[in-house]
Amino acid sequence: MIKPTPLSGFPEWLPGQQLAEQRVIDIIRNVYELHGFSRLETSAVERVSILGAKGEINKEIYGLGRLQGPPGRWEMALHFDLTVPLSRYVAQNSGSITFPFKRWQIQKVWRGERPQEGRFREFYQADIDVIGDSELPLSFDAELPAVIHEVFQKLGIRAQININNRKVLLGYYISLGLDEAKSTEVLREIDKIDKIGPNQVKESLLSLGLDEATADKCLKLCTLRGTPLKVIEQAKALNVQNEIFCQGLTELEFVAEELADLDEESLIFNLGIVRGLDYYTGTIYETMLPDYPSLGSICSGGRYDNLASEFINRRLPGVGISIGLSRLISHLFNQNALDCTRQTPTRILLSLPEERLRPACRTIARALREAGIPTEIYHEVASLKKQIRYADRKGIDYMLFPHQYDDSKQLVEIKNLHTGEQVQKPLAEVIGELQPFQPK
Amino acid sequence: MIKPTPLSGFPEWLPGQQLAEQRVIDIIRNVYELHGFSRLETSAVERVSILGAKGEINKEIYGLGRLQGPPGRWEMALHFDLTVPLSRYVAQNSGSITFPFKRWQIQKVWRGERPQEGRFREFYQADIDVIGDSELPLSFDAELPAVIHEVFQKLGIRAQININNRKVLLGYYISLGLDEAKSTEVLREIDKIDKIGPNQVKESLLSLGLDEATADKCLKLCTLRGTPLKVIEQAKALNVQNEIFCQGLTELEFVAEELADLDEESLIFNLGIVRGLDYYTGTIYETMLPDYPSLGSICSGGRYDNLASEFINRRLPGVGISIGLSRLISHLFNQNALDCTRQTPTRILLSLPEERLRPACRTIARALREAGIPTEIYHEVASLKKQIRYADRKGIDYMLFPHQYDDSKQLVEIKNLHTGEQVQKPLAEVIGELQPFQPK
Repeated sequence: MIKPTPLSGFPEWLPGQQLAEQRVIDIIRNVYELHGFSRLETSAVERVSILGAKGEINKEIYGLGRLQGPPGRWEMALHFDLTVPLSRYVAQNSGSITFPFKRWQIQKVWRGERPQEGRFREFYQADIDVIGDSELPLSFDAELPAVIHEVFQKLGIRAQININNRKVLLGYYISLGLDEAKSTEVLREIDKIDKIGPNQVKESLLSLGLDEATADKCLKLCTLRGTPLKVIEQAKALNVQNEIFCQGLTELEFVAEELADLDEESLIFNLGIVRGLDYYTGTIYETMLPDYPSLGSICSGGRYDNLASEFINRRLPGVGISIGLSRLISHLFNQNALDCTRQTPTRILLSLPEERLRPACRTIARALREAGIPTEIYHEVASLKKQIRYADRKGIDYMLFPHQYDDSKQLVEIKNLHTGEQVQKPLAEVIGELQPFQPK
Repeated sequence: MIKPTPLSGFPEWLPGQQLAEQRVIDIIRNVYELHGFSRLETSAVERVSILGAKGEINKEIYGLGRLQGPPGRWEMALHFDLTVPLSRYVAQNSGSITFPFKRWQIQKVWRGERPQEGRFREFYQADIDVIGDSELPLSFDAELPAVIHEVFQKLGIRAQININNRKVLLGYYISLGLDEAKSTEVLREIDKIDKIGPNQVKESLLSLGLDEATADKCLKLCTLRGTPLKVIEQAKALNVQNEIFCQGLTELEFVAEELADLDEESLIFNLGIVRGLDYYTGTIYETMLPDYPSLGSICSGGRYDNLASEFINRRLPGVGISIGLSRLISHLFNQNALDCTRQTPTRILLSLPEERLRPACRTIARALREAGIPTEIYHEVASLKKQIRYADRKGIDYMLFPHQYDDSKQLVEIKNLHTGEQVQKPLAEVIGELQPFQPK
């Protein structure tokens, strides 16, 4: 016999957690779809040449080989994010895609990193991206945070979306007399500010050759954070004479206007967020959860100039954002913040008191299921105590007794297993009260 | 630049197909849940020692290694079905599981087989299994085909579920004087009957040492197929004096009674199906689609005595059935049997005729989405022609014009893009007509 031991970094949830994770995924997908994003699922496996096209993180990639095949070079591997597969898919299918292409993609990705708290080797990401053909209107830069805001609202989790624009940062540095190369170096240092603090960042800036006044100005810019209107006002007051800066500010103003309906707690403009280095070119996002500060940014993204330049000679600008789904869910599990008491979708368990009642049970169960109510018939004639124990353990809400059911009166007894209340009523009434959806 | 070429055996669907596949998956999942099956998702990666526990098909397994790690023995691999992961999960978590454990699992699996028409290297399976603790009532043997019947009914696909019971076959062979080893050999030959025909099977039986009369009797049994009542009657008329045979027949009778509501075309008892060799011990299933005969059995399974004997010292009998989802969907695509005209969940596209109407569009879109109607605002001010072309290409049903909208009258113009009909009505009326679900 082989004792199966868990694989570190490959999370698997208990039955109740399985349903909770599914609820979270369903909510995210539903919001994505309400905003017109289309499902995309790419294969989990990519050519190594595709994954390595950017020359990045290939140390963390899992290569694939046939167990008993001849050893050889790695040709296939598991994808490590959903962006490379998206760009490869768009390049391959650009003739069949209607642009702007709005897609959601909720899939697992794999990274061979050392597993640690909240870092997995197999994990879900939940991405949306919009890809334009040669151009992409700015309205999408505002739509993504609106979608994300709605996701967290429906999940019942407070979220604070932080927005910045890389053009504001770069234009500002250029206005201070730094060239583009130096500006990029400054960005790289500023990116560390939440980790190492402003003093250490200032030292780094000085050692890059910035003078004290310029370093202070760089640091000052990234302390501007608050409501969109306030931050825009403060940025304008800097009176920066640089076209890129002004363009970034205009973009931020447009986004602020489009998001005017969001409440103050949910949306801040934060000129201190940078988001990595080369990829993003305009709007950038990070999302913190005030109730779970240790998570850091759980949902990040931004605007990029060209999605698939490695694969196709066509300019495909885009904007995207990604929820670290497994990291979020695992944290919520650890904090007991998700209800995991249900081990089944079943809402009603039909008692089977005697063999002769099987046909009545089947009729009642069919009516309940046709109304969209998940229903089980207890699988054997057994004591009521045993049947209720089964329902309790699985988190089933109601027990239904078919003793009195006949086709004319259709009366049933129903017991609420949470309150203990037991009443007799027509089956149609039970359905009316429990029916989740009324298909039109 | 790298030209991305498709990976043979790793199917990916075009945008319209993506939505069609999702609809099929949603329908299957919904039926599984209506019958009280709980979601299970296991990690895609297993220890090689787990996958090899039965010593099977390991030539087809994809092993995993880090691209730049040191070469070494394979320790991890991708799962090749959903049954081994289920048994490993149940063994690992048996203390947290309430039995009978009813789980659905719709996941991709990987096999390094040579790809060919309808055979993939990465593909979806959609399984349900019920696992009991030391015993499992026969009612589940009847529940699974009822669930599968409902799945295909909701998919709008005619399906014919074939049911047999291994005990009937084995008991019969024993009654003919064959010992258990010989019976197993006979089963193996009978299994080939649909591929090579009865004459060749008979020759094989003779060369196994059966006399002519016994071989004929074996062949005769497996020609019994028809309505449950008829087949049971014919089997009884054989007057076989063997306990195992009689037990199998009693089980078939119980299943027939529980499935009495199914129509004749959907359910046949077929004493000619065998389903592989060692695993199944009682009821077995195969499902053919009369409109797609070349698919063969698209949904098979059966009863087994012990799920996880390799991993845990506890008897866990079960019964399961699996839909070959990717094989089914790919076939339906090839036959143009799935509607792939929609490239988006969006039902209503809001026209944006002027910048000043953005706030009105946002208000209208919010109301539509709150009612569960996927809605997009066209992403820029553009000609009506351009906006309609976008909607047409993506398969959006309606175009909505917000010109006359104000908060008091809430009038909108709505154009049905399929019929061309355009009317003015209050927004609430539009919502009432389109709302998919009425949450209670």
